[in-house]
This record gives sequence, structure tokens and C-alpha cells, in this order.
Amino acid sequence: MRVARIIVALFMVLAVGNGFAAVLPSWNEGASRTAIIGFVEGVTETGGANYLAPEDRIAVFDNDGTLWSEKPAYFQLLFAIDRVKALASQHPEWKEQQPFKAVLENDMEALAASGEKGLVELVMATHAGMTTSEFEEIVTEWIATAEHPKLKRPYTQLVFQPMLELLDYLRDNGFKVFIVSGGGIEFMRPWVQQVYGVPPEQVVGSSIKVKYEMRDSGPVLVRLPEIDFIDDKAGKPVGIHKFIGRRPAFAAGNSDGDLQMLQWTTGGEGPSFGLIVRHTDAEREWAYDRDSHVGRLDKALDEAAARGWTVVDMKADWRKVYPH
Amino acid sequence: MRVARIIVALFMVLAVGNGFAAVLPSWNEGASRTAIIGFVEGVTETGGANYLAPEDRIAVFDNDGTLWSEKPAYFQLLFAIDRVKALASQHPEWKEQQPFKAVLENDMEALAASGEKGLVELVMATHAGMTTSEFEEIVTEWIATAEHPKLKRPYTQLVFQPMLELLDYLRDNGFKVFIVSGGGIEFMRPWVQQVYGVPPEQVVGSSIKVKYEMRDSGPVLVRLPEIDFIDDKAGKPVGIHKFIGRRPAFAAGNSDGDLQMLQWTTGGEGPSFGLIVRHTDAEREWAYDRDSHVGRLDKALDEAAARGWTVVDMKADWRKVYPH
Repeated sequence: MRVARIIVALFMVLAVGNGFAAVLPSWNEGASRTAIIGFVEGVTETGGANYLAPEDRIAVFDNDGTLWSEKPAYFQLLFAIDRVKALASQHPEWKEQQPFKAVLENDMEALAASGEKGLVELVMATHAGMTTSEFEEIVTEWIATAEHPKLKRPYTQLVFQPMLELLDYLRDNGFKVFIVSGGGIEFMRPWVQQVYGVPPEQVVGSSIKVKYEMRDSGPVLVRLPEIDFIDDKAGKPVGIHKFIGRRPAFAAGNSDGDLQMLQWTTGGEGPSFGLIVRHTDAEREWAYDRDSHVGRLDKALDEAAARGWTVVDMKADWRKVYPH
Repeated sequence: MRVARIIVALFMVLAVGNGFAAVLPSWNEGASRTAIIGFVEGVTETGGANYLAPEDRIAVFDNDGTLWSEKPAYFQLLFAIDRVKALASQHPEWKEQQPFKAVLENDMEALAASGEKGLVELVMATHAGMTTSEFEEIVTEWIATAEHPKLKRPYTQLVFQPMLELLDYLRDNGFKVFIVSGGGIEFMRPWVQQVYGVPPEQVVGSSIKVKYEMRDSGPVLVRLPEIDFIDDKAGKPVGIHKFIGRRPAFAAGNSDGDLQMLQWTTGGEGPSFGLIVRHTDAEREWAYDRDSHVGRLDKALDEAAARGWTVVDMKADWRKVYPH
């Protein structure tokens, strides 16, 4: 029996030791890490003033710029560009037609000049007109083979190691984690389980309409060139309400597109946490905020201080950026 | 050590014994119960031909007529009627204005005559114009206090005991259970956790639009008198795809409104199960199918045989109907 007790004690020491090492290891000691851990310990302390029942532990994370990089452009736009090039031989008319001409000539200035209208055309030409299963296959194939133009790595390697640890830390403490992104819901669903440990039904995003059809081969859902929902800015609380149906206790974002999600999450009565990832690391990732076209962080940065949100300084707070 | 082994063996016997007694006890022995158990044992048998990985064990259940009764009218319509009466003093004009006049005079014929247009007016007058939190409170209060006009019981007691057991049985076998109803998503979310063990984020339903607003008191979502999504008929596979993002392996419904959901669920490549609850019990519940205005079961009944769906005969298959 004495041997048994020694073994149990040894296990406990090892467990505690592992626990210590395992909490947010890629985060430097500092105010951000301390605030996160303080919040999580508070809401999980049974009988504590800030205790949250497990069913109220809902966490929402923006994707682009919060869980993975978003430069030189949203990765979904780079996907659309790759798709235009892959489909060009079936569309000889694209050689003379904007925004496709710009894409095929790698003329990013002309592409930008095509504006939101051009962007929507690009998305519809590459994201609609096939069944949902076909689109899933296209995304799965692309994400497995495509490489970032500058960093020459698969996009799924350009996820932030400290944020992966934060997802795990929250889940280990009973949080149910959702992605709430301006990006396309069906662009994310095929790979988020493997990369983030988030199942498809815990993804909220922008969408185009789909239509049910019974074909000779069986039932299909066809993707239509028509916007269904834009999950950005004031659309994020709407999307959260629509898909999740309750107010989160934890929200993480990186841009003004996340402002209303952060307001909504931290504007209730119970304990809550708002987190902003600030891109301050030109060496290891990118540095940008108020003047950036992609991922502009301006109003949300102003509100962060007033509302007590934690602004993560990528350069100072993160021991490493990417998993590699 | 011998004593310990005997205790372990005893526990195993008890566990097996309990397991036997616990599986679908309110279902009579027969083809329906046998088919359900056969399917579940098949998809959970590691290495078996019909094995489904836990993440593919998605089950979807219609609500009205499948999990609870729907006569004399959908319970949500009875809620709307109660709301009109509660709000009538603030709307003197309703005394002369259809469909409100019909409701206030308990003239169900005139109400029916107001058609879909009248129904939408009734829904918008009672479901829109408040914040989402306010609506949640209204539903919570109503569901806790209102009584069924004929059966004189709270509506949450008019759920089907055999179906509650089926939800538990599927969950015990690793299924994630969703409700996919033509009813209002926000009419169901406040009480489905307590009644069905289904959390709010696993409810798919019809919805009206909401709008984010920052008020002096904090952020709110306001319910607008505008339809967002109708989760019925061909809308059900669309809703499933939108909210869940993968094809279910198990679907249960009771009417033609569930036809496309059943087709979609059982029209894929893996093992799947389609179930139809047929209302055959005029004594303990109601008996209706092809000619009913509420919950008409006609086309789906014709397809059931061709597609191998299990048609549950309420009278023959269910030992009891309600929990009481």
C-alpha cells in the first residue's frame, strides 16, 4: 500500500508538472497571458464570484488575422485567384473581361480597382455553380496542395501557435469553441477540424445561397451565385445569435470587422473576455493596424482601452508565431 | 483479490441488465424497435461494414408532430394567439382588423380564411419588434405557464416518451442530436435543453431577421418583421447544410415537410436511417395522415416503402405516448 501511495503521489507531481508546462507555453509571461489565465481560472472556480456554468462557456474566434495570417490578401481571395487560373481554359472570354483579366495577368492593381463589384464577381465565378460536395472537394484539394506566395508553405501551416494553444486551453476548461469569420463558411469547414479541432457545425461565416435538387443520381445541394449572409461587422453578433443562440463569454478578433462581436460578447451581464490580436511583428509575421486595407484595426483599438479588452502584442507576447 | 473480482463481475452483470432494460423501454417489441436497434448497433460496431466514426453520427429530428404533439394546431400558433390576447389592450385597432379580430373572437374559421398572409401578420405582430432577450423571456414565461386547450397540461408535457428515449439512446451511442424544425428557432431554443437535452446551438429552425444596435444600456439584437429563412420542405436540407455543414446519418420526421430532409439524409453513400412517426392513435393522441391540414403525411408515406424508411405506428409501436 505504501508503494501504491508513492506511485499516486508521483503521478500527481507529474500531472501538475505537465499542467504547468502545458498552459499557453508559446506565450511570454506578461499582462496578456496573465489576463487570459486569470479569466479562465475565475470562470471555472466553483462557487467563485465569476463562475460560469459549463453550458455558458462559449468562445468565438475570428479566423483571418486572428487564427492564421491574412497577408498579402485574405487566403480565400488567393484561393479564388488560383481557381480563376485553373478554370481559365474553360473561359476564353476571361482574357478580355475584368476582373478575370487582371487575375490572369497578375495585375493586382487592376484587380483592386475592380472594387467590391469585381470581388463579388470573382467569388461567384469560383464559388458557385457546383454542388456542395464538389466545392468541398475543390477546397480540400487546394488546402492540401497550395502554397503561400511569399512564405512558400501550405496555408494551414500559417496558423498562430499561441492561438492554437489558447483554443486548447479554453476547451480543456470546458469552453465550446466556435469560429466566427467574415470568410466563407464552406471555405473553412473542410479543414478546420484537422487544423483547429473545431467541427464543421461550430463554424459561423459568410455564405451564398444553396438550392436542394433531386437528380437521377440522388439529392444534391447546388451553390447559387447569390449572397445569403455576410458575417462581418454588425453581421457577426447576428451570425452568433443565428447559429449559436446565446451570447459568448469569450471573443477574439484582430480588426474592425470584429468590433461588434467584441462589444456583444463583453456587453452582457456575466463575466466576459475580449481579446484583440495586434499585428506588430514585421519580422516574424506582418506589422499593420490603422492604415491597412486588409484587417484594418482602428476603431476597435480605440475601444479596447475603454472596454477593458486585452490587446495582444504579437511581437512582445508571443514566443513563437507559427508552429514550425 | 477474489472479492474484488466478484464485485467487478457483479457490476458487469448489473450494467448489462440495466442496459437491456434501459434501451427504448416504451417501445413495443416489433419491426420499428428492431430496425432502430439494428441500425445503431451496426454503426457503432468497430470494424463492422456499417461502422460510422463518432463525428459522422449526426441525427436530426423534426419537432412538431415528431417530438411533441401538433394538434389542434402547431403549438407556436397557439402561442401567437395567446400573445395577441395578451397584447390586445395595447392594440384597440385589432378589434376590427383581421386576422386579429378572428383571434380575439376565437373564430378559428375566420383565422383559417386569412390564409398564409394572415398567419405571417400574426407572427410578425407577436414575434417581432422586441429585442432577442425580451422575446426569450416571453417564450420562457409562456412555456412555463400556458396549458394545452384540450389536454389541460403544459405543452412540455405533451412530448413523446418513446422519442425522448430515442434521443437518449442515440446520444448514448455517440450521436450528436439536432432539432430541424419548420418552427421558429427562437421559439424553441429557450426550453429544448431542459425538455429534450438539446442545447440551443443544436437547433435549426425558421427565423426572422435581427439587427444589431448599440443602445445607451448596451448592445442589443432587435427582431425585425421580415422573414429570414423558412426551414421547411426543401428548406430543411438547406438548413441542415447551413447550420450543421454535413449530411446526417439519422433523420426522424412525421410529415411531408420532412420529405426532403429524409431524402437528403438517406440519399448519401454511408449507412443511414429514415424514420417517420405516423399518428395512428386517436385514443391516446391523434390519428391523421393524408388529409390533415396540420402535419399532412402523404408523399413521404408513399416514398417510405420505396426508400426503406421505418414508419412508426404510434398505436402499435408505443407502449406509452406521453411521459405522464
